[in-house]
Amino acid sequence: MRISPGTASFQLVNEFTNRVPAATVRRLSLYLRFLEDFGRSGVTSVASNALAERGGTTAAQVRKDLSYLGSYGKRGLGYSVEELTRVLRTVLGLDTVWRVALLGAGRIGTALFEYEPFRRRGFHITAVVDNDPAKVGTRLGHILVRAEHEMECVLREERIDLVIVAVPAPAAQGLVDRVVAADVKAVLNYAPVQLHLPEDVALRNVSMLVELESLSYALTRAADC
Amino acid sequence: MRISPGTASFQLVNEFTNRVPAATVRRLSLYLRFLEDFGRSGVTSVASNALAERGGTTAAQVRKDLSYLGSYGKRGLGYSVEELTRVLRTVLGLDTVWRVALLGAGRIGTALFEYEPFRRRGFHITAVVDNDPAKVGTRLGHILVRAEHEMECVLREERIDLVIVAVPAPAAQGLVDRVVAADVKAVLNYAPVQLHLPEDVALRNVSMLVELESLSYALTRAADC
Repeated sequence: MRISPGTASFQLVNEFTNRVPAATVRRLSLYLRFLEDFGRSGVTSVASNALAERGGTTAAQVRKDLSYLGSYGKRGLGYSVEELTRVLRTVLGLDTVWRVALLGAGRIGTALFEYEPFRRRGFHITAVVDNDPAKVGTRLGHILVRAEHEMECVLREERIDLVIVAVPAPAAQGLVDRVVAADVKAVLNYAPVQLHLPEDVALRNVSMLVELESLSYALTRAADC
Repeated sequence: MRISPGTASFQLVNEFTNRVPAATVRRLSLYLRFLEDFGRSGVTSVASNALAERGGTTAAQVRKDLSYLGSYGKRGLGYSVEELTRVLRTVLGLDTVWRVALLGAGRIGTALFEYEPFRRRGFHITAVVDNDPAKVGTRLGHILVRAEHEMECVLREERIDLVIVAVPAPAAQGLVDRVVAADVKAVLNYAPVQLHLPEDVALRNVSMLVELESLSYALTRAADC
């Protein structure tokens, strides 16, 4: 099945992607990164095992993951880098610009603000909110830092799609309750706390500690051998 | 089964934890955080559904996860907060100090260096390496930034257990190959690239983009409804 660009392909892709598991979505993000690298280096077509090798997975897994997008790739010919790149961008919602508000302009928040790949991917931080009077009124890049009590206005004015929570753990839930009330439907949480959100709000947690702790677990196990 | 503190319990715990799946290890990290909160607020015993509620999972999942540690909790009495906290710290390798080297003192690296919970958890960044002549010889906190060509000496001098990779993607694999050659057995990777390491080296990847992209995926799906 070939997919032509534009809305038609978008609709078509959707039919295939409404039931994609979260782990597969994460791998699709990785495959997209690899395909873009291949594209830059002039590769026009790749086999599933090339993606598998870079992704640290198996060719079977790659084929299964991509099968959610419909039946691509021709036996022996592999996948068209250009076509699969376009489809993955569409599926992952990366052919549009997402307006992002950064809540918390501390160390982590500032680092995230200055993380250039976010913008390259279409995630534009167009608002920054902090409760520190010393920060409110200053600028992060070209963005004015607004006071926390102004947050609802800012979210509405800037038509924010998604918020990044980079405030201390005790402040996170209260702030996010207000974000939800302001009808924002996606939250990326860096605060070390489990947030409770309604079913219809997408939440992803990035824990700075959990991955480190699974390494100390691995090191401890290794020490037993 | 009750577990007494000290080496005996450590050995005992190990028997139960050599086959714990990665996803369970991640949840154990979360349960530990919740148990510590409960402990601070004076709670002495918790039911599995209290941990489930905070962890956004089910009581059955909590009981299954904790069953890897042996049979805790008495029907109706729940789990001893103090005992389970101690066991989880031991299992996760958090009752020791891990010596960590930070590779890359850029925005992300600096934010990680200043992320206080790492130290509280026993992850002490005792070495920082960067290839920028303007940074080498300066200090991050009280740690002298060393040159990349000195890395092997630094890893040996500081008896580093674990490295955090916060260098640009193109530099990451080459640097990590040297880390592996220097016999470091754990790598936390923040570089947006898939690293290839020997079987006996534990690797965890933290992608700044993958979680954001799974949110844009969710937002796109929601838009279709």
